[in-house]
Amino acid sequence: MKISYKPIGVIHSDYEQRVGVPIQGALLPDSRGWVEVFPKYQDGLKDIEGFSHIILLFHFHLASGYRLLDKPYLEDKKHGIFSIRGPRRPNPIGFSIVRLEKRVDNVLHISEVDVIDGTPLLDIKPYVSKFDVRSNVKDGWLTERLKHAAGYKSDNRYSD
Amino acid sequence: MKISYKPIGVIHSDYEQRVGVPIQGALLPDSRGWVEVFPKYQDGLKDIEGFSHIILLFHFHLASGYRLLDKPYLEDKKHGIFSIRGPRRPNPIGFSIVRLEKRVDNVLHISEVDVIDGTPLLDIKPYVSKFDVRSNVKDGWLTERLKHAAGYKSDNRYSD
Repeated sequence: MKISYKPIGVIHSDYEQRVGVPIQGALLPDSRGWVEVFPKYQDGLKDIEGFSHIILLFHFHLASGYRLLDKPYLEDKKHGIFSIRGPRRPNPIGFSIVRLEKRVDNVLHISEVDVIDGTPLLDIKPYVSKFDVRSNVKDGWLTERLKHAAGYKSDNRYSD
Repeated sequence: MKISYKPIGVIHSDYEQRVGVPIQGALLPDSRGWVEVFPKYQDGLKDIEGFSHIILLFHFHLASGYRLLDKPYLEDKKHGIFSIRGPRRPNPIGFSIVRLEKRVDNVLHISEVDVIDGTPLLDIKPYVSKFDVRSNVKDGWLTERLKHAAGYKSDNRYSD
């Protein structure tokens, strides 16, 4: 079974290469960018302005191939690819929660951005407090690492 | 540009049809199911046990076509497809946060499930408090509707 998708837009940011990108937008709130939704899909943005945060699903277009065990940022030990958020996944789908600053027609201005410029956009969903904010969360291997993660940016580990 | 993915597993639940499924897992914590990850990807699950919650990305395999304006659950007014979480999307990718109860080899036992039995799984990511829990969230058109959403299940609006 093969599943085919088409980009619905492009994510733009100041990050033009794989090194120096915030590893997670929440760790670098000032990181800004914009989402261009192709005009044919613009009507799908109706009422999105009411949401403070949106979920972006995108294609990790620079990832080639996958590794079931891979080294995540913040750590030099390997973990299963489904226990980390890195790009070299069997299906290289990226997931980011960003802050929606403003909509102008088919363009969404966003902050808390951790996406490389030119990334193909697959979907946008509203981030909803009662659906997406969970309490009593256990963060697995990340628990200790998160204490020193603020402002952290990508190194070259996924550049080959 | 065409993007192709392959299922990495199957999501199983008690919900065999589109009507009567929890509209969001967080609204019905007792809803249970299991994720079968195909054996060839099992090594990618290493260390996932440490996480209390995981993100499932899946293919809305029963959705045919998309509507840029659609009626979500909890409301009879139409909103842009990117302002709602329904299945009839340009790229029908589903997103669920579920609670990870237990792992047995290539099977993840989960709760807070809102997915139809037999749904093709595309990716699993760890849900991480510092990345995914946002505060001061504005829920747009859902703000009022969420007050009466607990335990809500799907009706037949996406059955055609």
